[in-house]
Amino acid sequence: MARVVVKISGKHVTPEKPGLLKSYARVLKSLAGEGLLAAVVVGGGRAARSYIDAARGAGLGNRSMLDMLGIEAARLNARLLAYLLHPHSHPEPPRSLWEALQAAATGRIVVAGGFQPGQSTAAVAALLAEALQADMLVLATTVDGVYTSDPRRDRSARRLPRLTYQQLLRVLEQSLEPGRYELLDPLAVAVLERSGIPSRVVDGSDPENVARAARGEPVGSLVEPSGGGSG
Amino acid sequence: MARVVVKISGKHVTPEKPGLLKSYARVLKSLAGEGLLAAVVVGGGRAARSYIDAARGAGLGNRSMLDMLGIEAARLNARLLAYLLHPHSHPEPPRSLWEALQAAATGRIVVAGGFQPGQSTAAVAALLAEALQADMLVLATTVDGVYTSDPRRDRSARRLPRLTYQQLLRVLEQSLEPGRYELLDPLAVAVLERSGIPSRVVDGSDPENVARAARGEPVGSLVEPSGGGSG
Amino acid sequence: MARVVVKISGKHVTPEKPGLLKSYARVLKSLAGEGLLAAVVVGGGRAARSYIDAARGAGLGNRSMLDMLGIEAARLNARLLAYLLHPHSHPEPPRSLWEALQAAATGRIVVAGGFQPGQSTAAVAALLAEALQADMLVLATTVDGVYTSDPRRDRSARRLPRLTYQQLLRVLEQSLEPGRYELLDPLAVAVLERSGIPSRVVDGSDPENVARAARGEPVGSLVEPSGGGSG
Amino acid sequence: MARVVVKISGKHVTPEKPGLLKSYARVLKSLAGEGLLAAVVVGGGRAARSYIDAARGAGLGNRSMLDMLGIEAARLNARLLAYLLHPHSHPEPPRSLWEALQAAATGRIVVAGGFQPGQSTAAVAALLAEALQADMLVLATTVDGVYTSDPRRDRSARRLPRLTYQQLLRVLEQSLEPGRYELLDPLAVAVLERSGIPSRVVDGSDPENVARAARGEPVGSLVEPSGGGSG
Amino acid sequence: MARVVVKISGKHVTPEKPGLLKSYARVLKSLAGEGLLAAVVVGGGRAARSYIDAARGAGLGNRSMLDMLGIEAARLNARLLAYLLHPHSHPEPPRSLWEALQAAATGRIVVAGGFQPGQSTAAVAALLAEALQADMLVLATTVDGVYTSDPRRDRSARRLPRLTYQQLLRVLEQSLEPGRYELLDPLAVAVLERSGIPSRVVDGSDPENVARAARGEPVGSLVEPSGGGSG
Amino acid sequence: MARVVVKISGKHVTPEKPGLLKSYARVLKSLAGEGLLAAVVVGGGRAARSYIDAARGAGLGNRSMLDMLGIEAARLNARLLAYLLHPHSHPEPPRSLWEALQAAATGRIVVAGGFQPGQSTAAVAALLAEALQADMLVLATTVDGVYTSDPRRDRSARRLPRLTYQQLLRVLEQSLEPGRYELLDPLAVAVLERSGIPSRVVDGSDPENVARAARGEPVGSLVEPSGGGSG
Repeated sequence: MARVVVKISGKHVTPEKPGLLKSYARVLKSLAGEGLLAAVVVGGGRAARSYIDAARGAGLGNRSMLDMLGIEAARLNARLLAYLLHPHSHPEPPRSLWEALQAAATGRIVVAGGFQPGQSTAAVAALLAEALQADMLVLATTVDGVYTSDPRRDRSARRLPRLTYQQLLRVLEQSLEPGRYELLDPLAVAVLERSGIPSRVVDGSDPENVARAARGEPVGSLVEPSGGGSG
Repeated sequence: MARVVVKISGKHVTPEKPGLLKSYARVLKSLAGEGLLAAVVVGGGRAARSYIDAARGAGLGNRSMLDMLGIEAARLNARLLAYLLHPHSHPEPPRSLWEALQAAATGRIVVAGGFQPGQSTAAVAALLAEALQADMLVLATTVDGVYTSDPRRDRSARRLPRLTYQQLLRVLEQSLEPGRYELLDPLAVAVLERSGIPSRVVDGSDPENVARAARGEPVGSLVEPSGGGSG
Repeated sequence: MARVVVKISGKHVTPEKPGLLKSYARVLKSLAGEGLLAAVVVGGGRAARSYIDAARGAGLGNRSMLDMLGIEAARLNARLLAYLLHPHSHPEPPRSLWEALQAAATGRIVVAGGFQPGQSTAAVAALLAEALQADMLVLATTVDGVYTSDPRRDRSARRLPRLTYQQLLRVLEQSLEPGRYELLDPLAVAVLERSGIPSRVVDGSDPENVARAARGEPVGSLVEPSGGGSG
Repeated sequence: MARVVVKISGKHVTPEKPGLLKSYARVLKSLAGEGLLAAVVVGGGRAARSYIDAARGAGLGNRSMLDMLGIEAARLNARLLAYLLHPHSHPEPPRSLWEALQAAATGRIVVAGGFQPGQSTAAVAALLAEALQADMLVLATTVDGVYTSDPRRDRSARRLPRLTYQQLLRVLEQSLEPGRYELLDPLAVAVLERSGIPSRVVDGSDPENVARAARGEPVGSLVEPSGGGSG
Repeated sequence: MARVVVKISGKHVTPEKPGLLKSYARVLKSLAGEGLLAAVVVGGGRAARSYIDAARGAGLGNRSMLDMLGIEAARLNARLLAYLLHPHSHPEPPRSLWEALQAAATGRIVVAGGFQPGQSTAAVAALLAEALQADMLVLATTVDGVYTSDPRRDRSARRLPRLTYQQLLRVLEQSLEPGRYELLDPLAVAVLERSGIPSRVVDGSDPENVARAARGEPVGSLVEPSGGGSG
Repeated sequence: MARVVVKISGKHVTPEKPGLLKSYARVLKSLAGEGLLAAVVVGGGRAARSYIDAARGAGLGNRSMLDMLGIEAARLNARLLAYLLHPHSHPEPPRSLWEALQAAATGRIVVAGGFQPGQSTAAVAALLAEALQADMLVLATTVDGVYTSDPRRDRSARRLPRLTYQQLLRVLEQSLEPGRYELLDPLAVAVLERSGIPSRVVDGSDPENVARAARGEPVGSLVEPSGGGSG
């Protein structure tokens, strides 16, 4: 049976949206019951930005600590979700891949925020997918797939149902400000490529898209390894 | 040299008020430099309520877990403050009195949120003051002292410069809704009484009041053990 | 299937009574095998008092540390029981509700002593029952139920087969010295009330009473939420 | 400045003797204040035997777990002493040499019970002395030194003011039942020999003997490495 | 179903022999699948000696720390094997028997290196066998069984298909340099004797011998308790 | 007083070179005594490659676990160095930035290997320098500075005494195979840039170069932030 890691934007799993939270809890519980879920990773969203901004405003110059505050906010979102998924989930969001493997050894679903300053939650999700030997990464994001160019600026942009990670990196470099990788950063891509794990990019504002992707339906965009992965 | 534990309402130490946060960081660093500070405890404030409400709204019926979410939000506030006080502070908010004593063994100031469902942060502060053998607990709250009755409802209410814990409990029972103890709950009072530790209730909207109290100045209201404490 | 948390007085699970210990091990193993057991909580009993008295006699004035010694003695009793229940039980008595949830994630029965100074083991049992979503708390105590008044002093006292938590609190306030709550303290009652978890008070000097209660038989006194619990 | 590790028999540091406990606390605090104390190790004494016997009586056949119960009882004695020595001591008795080194990194005195089934507390003390680079091990025992033969049986036995570890092993083999090493077991001797750490065997029923030994006075018996140690 | 603990010489599970490592992974996975495996213990081998020698050469006189380096090298070998056995194994080699029991509570196979300076990995294996209530210890060593004398020096030496632990100790004392116990040290023998756990000594250069021993086949030498064990 | 983090190539701190190890221990102890040292980070070197290759050869396809083995080998090198620096150093190499901050709270020097799969030890060193607010990062590498092009291939290459991080990145991109960053990877540069921390690249085959760099002497190449860092 195929198992997935789901990475959800902090914009979707957040105390500001209890209704969406409830839908996510229902959908993820259902996937857990079907044995399809290995781990869930959530971003820090608004809480992370709020704590980082406040600390900076109050004079905290230590950038590592600013990042660590953001990660702790993401872990708070993860805990919120973990408690909603209880008892399918492990109750403690891990702070490293070592802790994640120990949590997974109980047979429970790992729910994580971030691991490390300077590292995206997408990279955390990629590492978890690799370490837990998941078959796919589902990216529940704020867009409904990968486009040829930024659809907000280019009306001729069209959604790609299928592309490679290398194509994705090129699209991201073109359509975004330099250095900003909303979907997947280079570390995440390197990890997914080397282990041959495909990703599916779906519109996370509807959790049913996550369910469809996890069950193998062709929703959003499928991003595939270029070949040569060891998986 | 007298050392204090400072308990700050989550309304004052919160990302929504970076200016106040900055003032608190400055004042507490100064007290730390003077060797006056043993520990700081902060409430969960708005973040705690937000996560608890969201979890409940999303269907979480497990009340212990709801409380634990609130405590984790308080620990996030504590971490925010701990990072601002670095390197005077220990970087990790403890989750039990055992962890607090281990953190204190490094000689750093302990910054804590909550410890336990069903327990106020005032009780946490009282236990820390007792365990760390502090000489006073400073309660930085939303009022400028203890009044004979609720000053928001009773214009004849007057501030008590000095009272006993037993008098405080009677005032709290009269002026508040039953079972709500904004300043100190019965466990906190029991701990402070048995160890003979006085408290000073000050208006926490100005951190200078905390500094004055820590330096022994007669600000706000002094609450004293009734006698017979072992301290 | 209904699952219970069993709270046993430290007077019953203690090295002074190996025969009773053996009976408890047998009965609890049997309940574990039937899938009826979520957690067991034991008090500190004589060992706790002995260490607290010794420390006080040797000059320890730190009341938090005195309480912590008592809790560690209760955890030693818990470990004794946990080893007897092995491999049904998790081998490490938790020191906080966070650790308890992590232990429970292995699918093993949690065996706990205390968590926190100023907190009864009944409160620990109530929090565990709530967090682990147990259906009932069984209180194996030194009396065979709740009486209308103290049967040791009042010959007209009669056992109540069924009462509410509010009735229990009133009985406790009347029949005991002020502030002493042998069965359940206010925090424990508040937790059980809010989560709608009934308790059964049984005579713990015979472990079979625990088995009967866990299997739903009408032994001792049943204490019920007043209604309105969220469970 | 020379630093010592003190190993105290569980017969002397036990809740049954609060007066002796108080004297030990006073003497050890004084040594700590003089910078002479690196670590203290205490045996399990009566509590250990009581828990082991109870568990065995209740049917626990797992010998490792029986030993672990005894070690936890020794750790409870260690905690009792650590709290009495607070704040000179680290508050948490370690369960391994790794934990002991981490506790020592705070600059506090480590107070330990046992580490491992099948290992004497004398071996724990020897390992701590070696790891913390102490200059001497003080053994506060139930005899006032090492005798040529068992003074309880042989009236011509005389106390040796000075001997080597090899001489000690020969004496122990002669005067005791085979396999019983009350003072030092072979592992402890091997550790002390290889690191060239002398021991002083003193009558622990008077804590002043420990103080004298720690300050370099010629009390009891001095046991010396045979030479060739790496210390 | 009988369960075994397998102790493998660090000479066989080492990065220098990836082919043998692969065979061990295959064989142990197969035994795990059959439910026959409780724990695996590996020695430090060449890596341990290399780090200890380097540290000594660089001036480290602290013998406990030298031993601890060797144990960490053994734990690295254990991790190597644990990752190869994933997900049958727990991912984290324990550093004490307490940690080992917690890892075993997940239902995964424990893979350990050493626990303690001054203690052989055979003793670790014996303690794990006892604590996890295994039925046999399989010793995958560099010889194909126990001989009447050292077969490298004595051509008349013959392999003993069956002997007692006491006979083994006598053979070891005769054929080896004093104090060197390659197969089992006195602590390991004491543990196995007291719990009535037999061992099978097999030639570990072929992992199939381990499989045969685990399945109850009469390979190598069987070492039996002398009787009177509590198992 | 300026404090530095030193990052040493695993080629220099390795059991194969006990003489160099001894020199490093002497030099780093001296810097620690002068209060100049905040943390030391070492790579995995030959041990890391050996374990990774062995695991891959034995069939381990899990790339995260392969990286984790390499990190554990680097942590073994770090432990070797930490024990040599004892008692200046904290004895336990951290596995995350959180653990590193807790170790640093004891006032001891943190000695680290790696933190995370997919992350260089240079990135670990940069994060530690940022979190511990060090004034400079010293990179003890296999070259004696940064060259205009690869000196092994281009005889006209000349060493740059001073350059910016952006210039360094351009040099690395030209002279190395794509994607290989021996000195500093993009994450490390991003961290050092944002916090305004300069690095000095020195020839680590002579530890005196590290001492000179730490004391502010103009050895090797100085790499400076481009300006605009928050430090």
